[in-house]
Amino acid sequence: MSYRAPVADIRFLLDHVAGFPDLAATARFAEATPDLTAAILDGAGRLCEDVMAPLQRVGDLHPARLENGIVRTPPGFAEGWRAIAEGGWIGLAAPAEHGGMGLPQTLAMAVTEMMSGACLALQIAPLLTQGQIEALSHHASDALKALYLPKLISGEWSGTMNLTEPQAGSDVGAVRTVAVPKGDGTYAITGQKIFISWADSEFIGNVVHLVLARLPDAPPGTRGISLFLVPRNIPDAEGNPGARNSLRVVSLEHKLGLHGSPTAMMDYDGATGWLVGEPHRGMAAMFTMMNNARLGVGMQGIGVAEAAFQHALAYARERRQGPTPQGEAIIGHADIRRMLAAMRAEIFAARAIALSCAVAIDMAEATGQADWATRAAFLTPIAKAYGTDTGVDVASAGMQIHGGMGFVEQTGAAQFLRDVRVTPIYEGTNGIQAMDLVGRKLMDGGEAAWRLLEEIEQGAEAARALLPDLAGEVWAAAETLRETTEWMLTRDQTDRFAGAVPFLRAWARVLGGHAHLAAARTEGGAGPRTALARVFIARLLPEHPALLAQARAGAAALYALSDDDLAA
Amino acid sequence: MSYRAPVADIRFLLDHVAGFPDLAATARFAEATPDLTAAILDGAGRLCEDVMAPLQRVGDLHPARLENGIVRTPPGFAEGWRAIAEGGWIGLAAPAEHGGMGLPQTLAMAVTEMMSGACLALQIAPLLTQGQIEALSHHASDALKALYLPKLISGEWSGTMNLTEPQAGSDVGAVRTVAVPKGDGTYAITGQKIFISWADSEFIGNVVHLVLARLPDAPPGTRGISLFLVPRNIPDAEGNPGARNSLRVVSLEHKLGLHGSPTAMMDYDGATGWLVGEPHRGMAAMFTMMNNARLGVGMQGIGVAEAAFQHALAYARERRQGPTPQGEAIIGHADIRRMLAAMRAEIFAARAIALSCAVAIDMAEATGQADWATRAAFLTPIAKAYGTDTGVDVASAGMQIHGGMGFVEQTGAAQFLRDVRVTPIYEGTNGIQAMDLVGRKLMDGGEAAWRLLEEIEQGAEAARALLPDLAGEVWAAAETLRETTEWMLTRDQTDRFAGAVPFLRAWARVLGGHAHLAAARTEGGAGPRTALARVFIARLLPEHPALLAQARAGAAALYALSDDDLAA
Repeated sequence: MSYRAPVADIRFLLDHVAGFPDLAATARFAEATPDLTAAILDGAGRLCEDVMAPLQRVGDLHPARLENGIVRTPPGFAEGWRAIAEGGWIGLAAPAEHGGMGLPQTLAMAVTEMMSGACLALQIAPLLTQGQIEALSHHASDALKALYLPKLISGEWSGTMNLTEPQAGSDVGAVRTVAVPKGDGTYAITGQKIFISWADSEFIGNVVHLVLARLPDAPPGTRGISLFLVPRNIPDAEGNPGARNSLRVVSLEHKLGLHGSPTAMMDYDGATGWLVGEPHRGMAAMFTMMNNARLGVGMQGIGVAEAAFQHALAYARERRQGPTPQGEAIIGHADIRRMLAAMRAEIFAARAIALSCAVAIDMAEATGQADWATRAAFLTPIAKAYGTDTGVDVASAGMQIHGGMGFVEQTGAAQFLRDVRVTPIYEGTNGIQAMDLVGRKLMDGGEAAWRLLEEIEQGAEAARALLPDLAGEVWAAAETLRETTEWMLTRDQTDRFAGAVPFLRAWARVLGGHAHLAAARTEGGAGPRTALARVFIARLLPEHPALLAQARAGAAALYALSDDDLAA
Repeated sequence: MSYRAPVADIRFLLDHVAGFPDLAATARFAEATPDLTAAILDGAGRLCEDVMAPLQRVGDLHPARLENGIVRTPPGFAEGWRAIAEGGWIGLAAPAEHGGMGLPQTLAMAVTEMMSGACLALQIAPLLTQGQIEALSHHASDALKALYLPKLISGEWSGTMNLTEPQAGSDVGAVRTVAVPKGDGTYAITGQKIFISWADSEFIGNVVHLVLARLPDAPPGTRGISLFLVPRNIPDAEGNPGARNSLRVVSLEHKLGLHGSPTAMMDYDGATGWLVGEPHRGMAAMFTMMNNARLGVGMQGIGVAEAAFQHALAYARERRQGPTPQGEAIIGHADIRRMLAAMRAEIFAARAIALSCAVAIDMAEATGQADWATRAAFLTPIAKAYGTDTGVDVASAGMQIHGGMGFVEQTGAAQFLRDVRVTPIYEGTNGIQAMDLVGRKLMDGGEAAWRLLEEIEQGAEAARALLPDLAGEVWAAAETLRETTEWMLTRDQTDRFAGAVPFLRAWARVLGGHAHLAAARTEGGAGPRTALARVFIARLLPEHPALLAQARAGAAALYALSDDDLAA
């Protein structure tokens, strides 16, 4: 079974649920016509199906390895990267002045999803490069932009993010890498970084590292971190890769999945770097990159979920085990069907939320209206956490549908789970996402939350005549979510954090129900999208009250168990 | 961090929740005094901690392999098996007349849990051997018993189950392996079997296969399957391994986890076998073996959950990432604490259910009362599915707590997930367990269900004065579960199957709440067990209504989505 790009579902969501047509109505994105959108999605879909999907197993069976300081990637990955680069896919949403296409992030995100479904290990490389392009576009000097952006956009060079150090994971403020001014406008960067995805590869002209480090006069914590651009090869006068910088890949990790993607420990030993943005303001610059990277990781989860779903569905249509109420294949068994229907309903909801978030990012840029930025900021942690949880849950269900064959690696079902399992962890664990939601994203009193709830309730009202039962469920769920959101605003941080993850999941349930309801309404309340909406709203949305109970349970009961009680 | 056998929690549950003291009050199990019980659990615990736990990583790093027809197992596994065998652990519950200790299955199951936590890949070997001992004890001729049981009980030989064929997985009736009478009382067995755990090893004196096959006059389906004993080496006149039988290991699977455990494709080419039980009644014999094997697999899930929890807890107490509301280590963060508390609460509930099931098995044997057998039969699929789901969920949460380190294999967190992921699949997928629960196990009108609900409500009544809020929640949940159980009895099979998995999970939630309430009552309504009960009842039991909604959602909505709709 090979991967089929879900172009039709993405187009449906763009057109009828996520509000993409409004985007094409702005001056900034007037280019994003239905025809161009179709051409982009179809083109990316073909690349995914024809070029990337065949690399999925190859990458797993031929892990990236370090040989005499050179990172060797799996057979075909170099050609895959080249095809992505030459198709212009890296620069889809990058500034036109530096060679990008200047199209909406939404389209880039849709492409990210498809590429992740086709071959996640390879897709990480363009995703990180895109994040770097964005960070440089917003924060780098004109000189750095002019030198680096065209090479990154064309895919001649690639980009990485260097945040984590052994003692500094979620606590980025604990970074110890130092940057000492050399007096010529450059800095000497010294320190060790870990978990650097695509830190190097034998086929890339140059690798550009964005590195968090501390200036000598830096205050402690996150307010003392600056961002530096540190190229593997220092560009010469013509802008070509010149002298080797003082940095090296120390080792590659042996990981549960994503074997094709090299994950490195990096050593910087007085490497030459250039400051990006203001001194001590590196976190702000990094957040530009991270917010979209977080949505991109949500897309990765959804992409793998889609691929794992297709894979399990194909098996379920093929495999015969006894008579079923409907046909011979195991898809006719009610319990297999329950799993498949739930998988598809979750993917649809997660994709709708993620694309809505992407549209909000683009609308913020196109209109300059703060409301859109607030909406995007609110939806980002939900899209990241729900998209990646869906990736893991669907991949695990896909294995389950395969029965014993699912545990055997040659089937490929297990690889989806191994690969996608990192997505709820990296770019901020899903716990961090949830704390972001109940912390920073509610700090303004919940503006975005109230507007979204309003919209959900309006959607339910609009659907009430056509689909009274479904509309009633979504409306009622939004009301209880409103109460719990209000409750959150009255509590201290520890209580909020104790309920953060279930609160985020409750939001995903309600937003998912809203998207399914909109889809059902679009097809007039009868048809496959309505049937799928019924699965989501009758079976998955009812998890909402339990999530709210968990969200409001408070921290006291958790701390009533001492560390030693837990260990007893 | 090394594994610590959870002897104290197991003893607490045996003494105060699972009803073990009643067992020791029967004539059959009068030997199972508190002193002997303590000695058994402590002794097994030491073996697990000192001998088996060190093999966990070794087995993963040195997969079993097939070399010139010989199955080579990881370094130390031979010594591990020997220690298990020489300690008498294989025959703990086996008939005394053949060299076993004749102790309750409950103790054997508790030992199974601990051994699984220490090293699941190795534990599978004694578990399968124990299942075979049981099947032979109940169904084999006296001659076969006399010849084989002492060798299996001593661990000189080991046993396997051969059910699955490429076309016959969950649909056991599709077995094609044939058995032709040779005229001397033996049979020539020919066919291929797959997924045979511990099919062979270089260190075992003899391997005894129990093989499902068809006699020439067999009716189709499960009513035409017979069970045969097929030894690797045919015992000579002295009962020692003699001539090599016509069977061989064709290949070993490359699996997601359990690398230390050889999983084989077997070829039988006219191999000599002996009939076990009646012709065409092999499934009945196999079910004897499978029921306890299912509970054993539930124990495997719980054991790995315990080990993964301990591993994550140790990391959370050690790892520092920013200040927390309580201390420096990440265990002080509310979200980490939420995960750890939920993990421990689930393990406690799953262990309570599984041990209660084991006690029912033993009480059935000790008293001959059908009520106990019915209770054991009802609890078995719940114990299997909930125990193994808990294994996967806790292992996955353990990875999450490790953050990025969880995705790196050297941490060991990922191995728990890889290893345990097969347990919801083998010995009947958890979907099959749930169908067994709503099908066969409700066929008598739900006798066991009503008695259990009665007991749960009595437990809640008894706790009401001490813990009114917790008791009220459990009581109310039992009432709604009663209604849904009644509903199930009125529906056709397809509707029941469409809701089977959530129905089983709802039972696990309510039985878990009941066990936690009993534990809280035992300590007088204040203390760590009460605090843990609050976590379960306030945070996890509220999932119950959603599970019931799913259980009662019916099949129509699922079949309203055609196969093509799902694929669209």
